[in-house]
Amino acid sequence: MKKPIILINFKAYENSFGKKGVDIAKRIEKISTEYSTEVILSVPATMIPVLSKEVSLTIYAQHVDSYPLGAHTGSLLPEMIKEAGAKGTLLNHSEKRIRADEIHDALLRLNKLGLESVVCVDRYELVEPMALLRPTAILIEPPELIGSGISVSKAKPEVITNAVKEISKVPGVFLIAGAGISNGEDVYTAVKLGADGIGVASAVMKAKEPEKVVEDFIKSGIKAMDEKNDRN
Amino acid sequence: MKKPIILINFKAYENSFGKKGVDIAKRIEKISTEYSTEVILSVPATMIPVLSKEVSLTIYAQHVDSYPLGAHTGSLLPEMIKEAGAKGTLLNHSEKRIRADEIHDALLRLNKLGLESVVCVDRYELVEPMALLRPTAILIEPPELIGSGISVSKAKPEVITNAVKEISKVPGVFLIAGAGISNGEDVYTAVKLGADGIGVASAVMKAKEPEKVVEDFIKSGIKAMDEKNDRN
Amino acid sequence: MKKPIILINFKAYENSFGKKGVDIAKRIEKISTEYSTEVILSVPATMIPVLSKEVSLTIYAQHVDSYPLGAHTGSLLPEMIKEAGAKGTLLNHSEKRIRADEIHDALLRLNKLGLESVVCVDRYELVEPMALLRPTAILIEPPELIGSGISVSKAKPEVITNAVKEISKVPGVFLIAGAGISNGEDVYTAVKLGADGIGVASAVMKAKEPEKVVEDFIKSGIKAMDEKNDRN
Amino acid sequence: MKKPIILINFKAYENSFGKKGVDIAKRIEKISTEYSTEVILSVPATMIPVLSKEVSLTIYAQHVDSYPLGAHTGSLLPEMIKEAGAKGTLLNHSEKRIRADEIHDALLRLNKLGLESVVCVDRYELVEPMALLRPTAILIEPPELIGSGISVSKAKPEVITNAVKEISKVPGVFLIAGAGISNGEDVYTAVKLGADGIGVASAVMKAKEPEKVVEDFIKSGIKAMDEKNDRN
Repeated sequence: MKKPIILINFKAYENSFGKKGVDIAKRIEKISTEYSTEVILSVPATMIPVLSKEVSLTIYAQHVDSYPLGAHTGSLLPEMIKEAGAKGTLLNHSEKRIRADEIHDALLRLNKLGLESVVCVDRYELVEPMALLRPTAILIEPPELIGSGISVSKAKPEVITNAVKEISKVPGVFLIAGAGISNGEDVYTAVKLGADGIGVASAVMKAKEPEKVVEDFIKSGIKAMDEKNDRN
Repeated sequence: MKKPIILINFKAYENSFGKKGVDIAKRIEKISTEYSTEVILSVPATMIPVLSKEVSLTIYAQHVDSYPLGAHTGSLLPEMIKEAGAKGTLLNHSEKRIRADEIHDALLRLNKLGLESVVCVDRYELVEPMALLRPTAILIEPPELIGSGISVSKAKPEVITNAVKEISKVPGVFLIAGAGISNGEDVYTAVKLGADGIGVASAVMKAKEPEKVVEDFIKSGIKAMDEKNDRN
Repeated sequence: MKKPIILINFKAYENSFGKKGVDIAKRIEKISTEYSTEVILSVPATMIPVLSKEVSLTIYAQHVDSYPLGAHTGSLLPEMIKEAGAKGTLLNHSEKRIRADEIHDALLRLNKLGLESVVCVDRYELVEPMALLRPTAILIEPPELIGSGISVSKAKPEVITNAVKEISKVPGVFLIAGAGISNGEDVYTAVKLGADGIGVASAVMKAKEPEKVVEDFIKSGIKAMDEKNDRN
Repeated sequence: MKKPIILINFKAYENSFGKKGVDIAKRIEKISTEYSTEVILSVPATMIPVLSKEVSLTIYAQHVDSYPLGAHTGSLLPEMIKEAGAKGTLLNHSEKRIRADEIHDALLRLNKLGLESVVCVDRYELVEPMALLRPTAILIEPPELIGSGISVSKAKPEVITNAVKEISKVPGVFLIAGAGISNGEDVYTAVKLGADGIGVASAVMKAKEPEKVVEDFIKSGIKAMDEKNDRN
């Protein structure tokens, strides 16, 4: 992962898959290329093989099951997403919560396969516990703000500062802030408060010009990182 | 669906996806073409767009979630599998059980989209209740025989005959028999007992020459159908 | 069960247990005795042994697990509620949904033990499927009206009439209507539409004088039953 | 909690409730009194009010839900078990797994009510993460050994030593070892390896003379504690 982390969760909107999904991904790719910045798209399972070929962005799954290969009808396994071109996955999103033992099982498998992982949590008290399980990053999102248009940066900055404090206890794990992130200012604030980047969904997926939203995010993220002398 | 129904569940084996998955699908396609018989493959989500292009077989998902489009991270929705090329899906497989209200919600969505559906049940008492929810077919599989190599046809023929009796109460819904189906004789018996076809996984996926297993299944299924004068 | 069925779900309010729970049960008992009418209370697990001794009402559990006796930490099993004095249980309440195979497993166990069962469903399409699994009664409750104070009798009478039509296909299973039932008129309408009784929670549990609410329910239920010449 | 912690999980055996449940509890009470040692019984929900009155032992629930009081049919809430006489509860037993956010929600409620809590984990890697959520104790049980008669003390002592190392990072949280504990020697070894006590189920519940098994456990636990000069 490269900072500032810009993670766009496609979720399951009508433009998250098919031609519309490819179209929005290509618009974002253009901005990513222009600013030489990594953008991560977490996409529906059927779109992983499609977008891995169509765009040069980093493709993530939105969830994986923790089972080993075998008789597991209806499961999406780490090996499958890797083969399809994904570089990582979300885990435990508030819309797909799993148990701590399942998170750990999945992380052991993902780490072995060289796949990245972003474990979502809904409160700062879970940042250190989940970071101890060795994901690539923790994404903190107060669920009441998800999709609200009210950003965690403005409405609950203490969630980010508390999470930053917690993540510092487990070196090597990134912290991503999410929920209600709507514009560059939200991104700037989140990064200045100590986050390594941001996670976003509706502000991009529901935008008329998603590429402009992403451009605003990237510029603000880079600016904040530069001010922190912390970019890598 | 065309009788005899031959439904091959790829599950999540090491040869269920990637190049190996394409290879096994192509071998099966050859037999399907040779006998002009429909074969259904229910495949991992990431393989739906791939196999829909690579082979002329009928591709199914292994599960869909019942949510409408929207903020549902990690879900696989009917619209997604349709766009990716699937013609239907399994629901409620013993390895991915869901609730009756979720099955009904999913069926309403699948039926509206013109997608086929196979609802799995583990006992004959659930055949009529689930058939009343209007899937395309019911797949009955005693879970203790799944993957056992001991076929329901031989070990528990009464499960099939009871299920046949139950399904007859709901005209227009097919009955598929599964669990332990290993060879042509199992298929022949299942169809003669009244099933419209069979569901299989390990006997094909773990075979050295899966195309020969499928050929045996198809020939036996056709033979039994012809004897019943019931083919369509 | 005796008609009109009056089923009061204690849920998990602050007055559903302890002294307050006993107090409200005793107030209801007084009315039940006065009108010689059966009233069913479905109560928290810890209150089953207490209320079974304290009042002469019919005590139900709110849920049971479908496991056999054995190593099942944290489960409430049919044998346990029977031993504690319950005469039956709710199953699949919208706040505790389970799968169809679990419902069937639980019903087999409950029936064997001579315990009554009320399977809750959220739509009329599930009335016949669940009735086929042989519970004592089906309780239909559109979840959007639960606790709303807007009664199913007034807002969605077609839910009741459709459910009545469906239940008639499975003789021997009672139909109970619930969701938003607030006063005697709601009960009267539900019974006149064909329900064998009603299920209620907040209108009783949150009332200042719960015994008066129950009295209103009983009187209206008896009146409607008498007009139908259908009481037993 | 007092060391050595002796936690007996009644689970859902045929002698876990009713008269048999009271009988076994009384036998254990006698030994507990004789040795002036606390013994904790985690019992089915319906038995909490019964055993709290019948015996002087510490009574625990086997699970609580994390909801606040309200419309939660079928849930067992912290307030309910406290009112019924329990002093604490198990959480996340391998037979009743819940998510980390649910564990945290439940712990916040339990701690506020002054109730004790024992969070079960199946691997040492989850000891520190769960201890950070502030339960009274962590119970580590490799699930493959539960009910096996092969004790974790003998078969996997490294699970205990690793867990002891992990728990030391979170002062104030006890460590209990479980799975396959069958006799005094197992208890002695577990305590000598650093555990504060043991959890047991089948070895007591399936014994002809459960009181003798418990006596053996207590004597061995006290001996090991005394040798560590660590009893409190």
